[in-house]
Amino acid sequence: MANISAVIARIEDSGFKVHLSEGEERTIIGVIGDGRPIERGQLERMPDVERCVPILESFKLASRNFKPAGTTFPIGDHQVGSNQLVLMAGPCSVEDRSQIIETAHAVKEAGAHILRGGAFKPRSSPYSFQGLGEDGLRYLAEAREQTGLPIVTEVMEPGLVELVAEYADILQIGARNMQNYALLHAVGKSQHPVLLKRGMSSLMEEWLMSAEYILSHGNTRVMLCERGIRTFERYTRNTFDINAIPVIKQMSHLPIIADPSHATGKWEYVAAAAKASVAAGADGLIIEVHPHPDQALSDGAQSLKPKRFADLVTEMKAIAEAIGRTLP
Amino acid sequence: MANISAVIARIEDSGFKVHLSEGEERTIIGVIGDGRPIERGQLERMPDVERCVPILESFKLASRNFKPAGTTFPIGDHQVGSNQLVLMAGPCSVEDRSQIIETAHAVKEAGAHILRGGAFKPRSSPYSFQGLGEDGLRYLAEAREQTGLPIVTEVMEPGLVELVAEYADILQIGARNMQNYALLHAVGKSQHPVLLKRGMSSLMEEWLMSAEYILSHGNTRVMLCERGIRTFERYTRNTFDINAIPVIKQMSHLPIIADPSHATGKWEYVAAAAKASVAAGADGLIIEVHPHPDQALSDGAQSLKPKRFADLVTEMKAIAEAIGRTLP
Amino acid sequence: MANISAVIARIEDSGFKVHLSEGEERTIIGVIGDGRPIERGQLERMPDVERCVPILESFKLASRNFKPAGTTFPIGDHQVGSNQLVLMAGPCSVEDRSQIIETAHAVKEAGAHILRGGAFKPRSSPYSFQGLGEDGLRYLAEAREQTGLPIVTEVMEPGLVELVAEYADILQIGARNMQNYALLHAVGKSQHPVLLKRGMSSLMEEWLMSAEYILSHGNTRVMLCERGIRTFERYTRNTFDINAIPVIKQMSHLPIIADPSHATGKWEYVAAAAKASVAAGADGLIIEVHPHPDQALSDGAQSLKPKRFADLVTEMKAIAEAIGRTLP
Amino acid sequence: MANISAVIARIEDSGFKVHLSEGEERTIIGVIGDGRPIERGQLERMPDVERCVPILESFKLASRNFKPAGTTFPIGDHQVGSNQLVLMAGPCSVEDRSQIIETAHAVKEAGAHILRGGAFKPRSSPYSFQGLGEDGLRYLAEAREQTGLPIVTEVMEPGLVELVAEYADILQIGARNMQNYALLHAVGKSQHPVLLKRGMSSLMEEWLMSAEYILSHGNTRVMLCERGIRTFERYTRNTFDINAIPVIKQMSHLPIIADPSHATGKWEYVAAAAKASVAAGADGLIIEVHPHPDQALSDGAQSLKPKRFADLVTEMKAIAEAIGRTLP
Repeated sequence: MANISAVIARIEDSGFKVHLSEGEERTIIGVIGDGRPIERGQLERMPDVERCVPILESFKLASRNFKPAGTTFPIGDHQVGSNQLVLMAGPCSVEDRSQIIETAHAVKEAGAHILRGGAFKPRSSPYSFQGLGEDGLRYLAEAREQTGLPIVTEVMEPGLVELVAEYADILQIGARNMQNYALLHAVGKSQHPVLLKRGMSSLMEEWLMSAEYILSHGNTRVMLCERGIRTFERYTRNTFDINAIPVIKQMSHLPIIADPSHATGKWEYVAAAAKASVAAGADGLIIEVHPHPDQALSDGAQSLKPKRFADLVTEMKAIAEAIGRTLP
Repeated sequence: MANISAVIARIEDSGFKVHLSEGEERTIIGVIGDGRPIERGQLERMPDVERCVPILESFKLASRNFKPAGTTFPIGDHQVGSNQLVLMAGPCSVEDRSQIIETAHAVKEAGAHILRGGAFKPRSSPYSFQGLGEDGLRYLAEAREQTGLPIVTEVMEPGLVELVAEYADILQIGARNMQNYALLHAVGKSQHPVLLKRGMSSLMEEWLMSAEYILSHGNTRVMLCERGIRTFERYTRNTFDINAIPVIKQMSHLPIIADPSHATGKWEYVAAAAKASVAAGADGLIIEVHPHPDQALSDGAQSLKPKRFADLVTEMKAIAEAIGRTLP
Repeated sequence: MANISAVIARIEDSGFKVHLSEGEERTIIGVIGDGRPIERGQLERMPDVERCVPILESFKLASRNFKPAGTTFPIGDHQVGSNQLVLMAGPCSVEDRSQIIETAHAVKEAGAHILRGGAFKPRSSPYSFQGLGEDGLRYLAEAREQTGLPIVTEVMEPGLVELVAEYADILQIGARNMQNYALLHAVGKSQHPVLLKRGMSSLMEEWLMSAEYILSHGNTRVMLCERGIRTFERYTRNTFDINAIPVIKQMSHLPIIADPSHATGKWEYVAAAAKASVAAGADGLIIEVHPHPDQALSDGAQSLKPKRFADLVTEMKAIAEAIGRTLP
Repeated sequence: MANISAVIARIEDSGFKVHLSEGEERTIIGVIGDGRPIERGQLERMPDVERCVPILESFKLASRNFKPAGTTFPIGDHQVGSNQLVLMAGPCSVEDRSQIIETAHAVKEAGAHILRGGAFKPRSSPYSFQGLGEDGLRYLAEAREQTGLPIVTEVMEPGLVELVAEYADILQIGARNMQNYALLHAVGKSQHPVLLKRGMSSLMEEWLMSAEYILSHGNTRVMLCERGIRTFERYTRNTFDINAIPVIKQMSHLPIIADPSHATGKWEYVAAAAKASVAAGADGLIIEVHPHPDQALSDGAQSLKPKRFADLVTEMKAIAEAIGRTLP
């Protein structure tokens, strides 16, 4: 009893109200407040406290309640988050000028709206190809000039946000950086749209809290990108958490993009995962396409050739229409 | 060198041939044989052996190579594994006579081909509802008589295979029993089609090896059922491994059925997961439907009401047609 | 408001009391009762219900509250659950008469109290060695006769509990069968002590509920065995969840045994994991020992040779004493 | 055959040699070279290539082979990596001047050699306490002045490495930043010892490759810190991968430090995990200690009070001696 009183006193001292439900074996102490966060660890460390269950989500600006109609914004000719799906495609890395320009034309012709390509590459090994850096950005800009396709490319450190934003239309935050808060802060201050990939082992709640970092620094144009999570299964590179698509649509107002290339890791499975994403309600896709995957400097195994990509676009269009959306 | 010779001698003594590739830092010893298994642990326990990498799969009868055209077989009017999707639906548990008969009529009208319903229920807690047992089987049989729908229901122990097979058209092996070898043996001796659910944390290779147990005991009519795997994500009951659909289609000739109800655990997400399954190439679905989910004795949270199920069938039909299949 | 009233009515109709805490954005409805389970899915399926959080554990007989002093019982000369650690050792499988008898003498000499050895073996592949069956049991009994060591061996199906119990002193339930409820039921009716291995992906709560199945059928002599869980890490066979040792000691009164052989899967790491188990507070260990691991028909890679096992026993004794326990 | 020739030609064109082993159903093509990396994805994308299995590890400088005797270096009076264990302790966050100074004296008296404390804090939510920043560093420096304890503290972005290094003796890379390559690069250029925490879902191989980033930029004083991985288990905050201790000792020459506070997430389990770490062969520990855990601004639930920490040190000393090491 003294311990219960102590917990109540602590909660009230912190400016919250208390609601008490005494059960046969446990007492439930409801904490009622104005949405300010409370440090759970403090309460859990008090005597006789078994656990502390959060009732409200920890994100506000990213929550569906905050904007029930859903977020939409334009990129190029496209309204992301609308009934029209957006399609991003291109190679994993920009490898040289002709590769990215050839690919840009190919994916445009096949129906893509946005060109992807990495200039700065996060690689597990320091000995792997690390990307062309600013040269890569220049080639991307040239590809945009020739095709009209806006550019999405990854930025890996706060100090490079300004440089990348000079060239790119969309700033991509990679899975490994989903909780790189300095970087989230930096892109939050930018006014470029952001593609925020889910971390390899991130709870959906943590992913939305990372989006909250960006939103709370003033940038409202955030797209979430499901790219597979790490599980025990070894046959595919990642496990595509397709459930994330309806869950995010319910929990948040932000558009959700699927990345079937990383989510499977093998080109043979990309088409199935891509079609599934459309059927599940994704607002768009980002797909790796390479004219010569067996010469790719990264992710060759999961890249589609342009012809196969074009066939997939046709199939995805049919599915989009079957569920009342379009892939223009 | 002496250690390498010892490994070679051991392999040759076991009747296999050896191919040697000497690298700068490691030597690769290829083991070449007729497909008999070799006990990896023995080799890995010899001095200087770092690891033992299997090149061939451990399953043969379940392998796509064994039957490249794919397995199809009839259940009721339906040819499972054909271009026509098969749809199984019904409550998690048979709760009483009128519940299962009401549901059977409702799912038939909505377009289901097979009625599901549990008579013997695996429950984590010994204090939860454990199913009606043989009474449940009788009610299922009566529902079949009234509607013409064949029955799929779970069998949980070898001693009950005969009893369940008297009533059921398809024997379901639940996720918890995927590696219950005595049970796999028993259904392998039966001539009833089997629906083999993937274990909660089973590699796809282990799942196919469990199918191999059934096939190798003489029963060739096995369907694999992806029902979600256990991961760190907590927002959904399981993580639906949609990648499993194209992977299984490539690795095996057996039909693959999706269970979006268990794969999500919440009715709000079932429709998205079901539509994704169709788009990804599943050969069929099994979906929980209950006329009064808020009174269900198990799995109420993930059960659809009949009206919503009927709407979903319409949407799935459209997607099936968009990819050149049908849901008759 | 109507929806809240409906939930309250439903709870009260089921014979529970309700405590209401109205927050700014959510209402918390406490369900207060006598410990009978409530079907969460039903409530979660009602309109406007977001989720249902259990406050009490689902197990009672297995709970530490049920028997605060902890369970101890004799096996051979040993009091399991006491301050003295119990040590089980022997080969993965009984392979022939001389192998098990040689090993029994060796582990006894090194300090083991109980002999392990599998006669019925659960194997992922139908083509792997499946154990010697009843012959294996006979050899185990002969080894016991010669050495005085009690026997622990696995039983894999309800129909064999009686046979295995004729020969064995302790019935082992393997990881794959942790939720084989017919088997739990059958060993619950037996009066033999049970070693219940944790399932490969079982929550600790589920493991305790499986123990509850055994306890609630009348058998109170249950030991829990942590043998590693399945995670994304691939370098070891399993991930040893050493946290389970203090957690189980806190949540339950049942003795906890560690299996460092399966928990690592490689003999090089067994000693470290075994010593860690003693330091963390395990009540005993079960360790695979084989006189010729490179000829073992199963699990050779993780088996210790008798000499190394004897050295490990010496090290474990020192650690046991350092924490105020003994390994007699 | 044509496809096999194509693969061989590609490998040889890249400057590697080939060793061919033709089996009954598969052909194994060994790639033999000088240790330069090869892009696996390229080969896997060629026709008829099933998979590409790396034989050598991707790290060199971090490998045990590179420095078989193991790395040791001094920090304060201590030789990290020697037979003497190193003990780091202190609060999760520096909260104010008196808190860190009080804790520094307490942990020193209890036997700690190094003071931990976060000035820049990575927090999932943008609304949680983010640390005192440079003020926190100043208070840490003052605590060092008073107690003589060297300081370990986290650095979260490349731009702050210089600032943090002005105050700190050891730079900590947090779990969320294990693959923040710009940051690894920056601390690699520094000459401060680095404590590299394992990522929440990082393979041990990836962790060592992150160490390789630091080593290859010229900083050889790297300590690895196991702090628990993310799994399906929910009862503890993380799953302590104690296997990592012997695995890292075998694969790498770098010292391995255990963090039982994050690895469990609840103070009740910290002592068991800490003692297990010592028994498993860790070279040191880092433990959260707070004089008033129920007022901690972060991680209160997993922090020990000074008295309990002092008792734990006594127990760890006894275990260290039992295995022939010391905790001075």
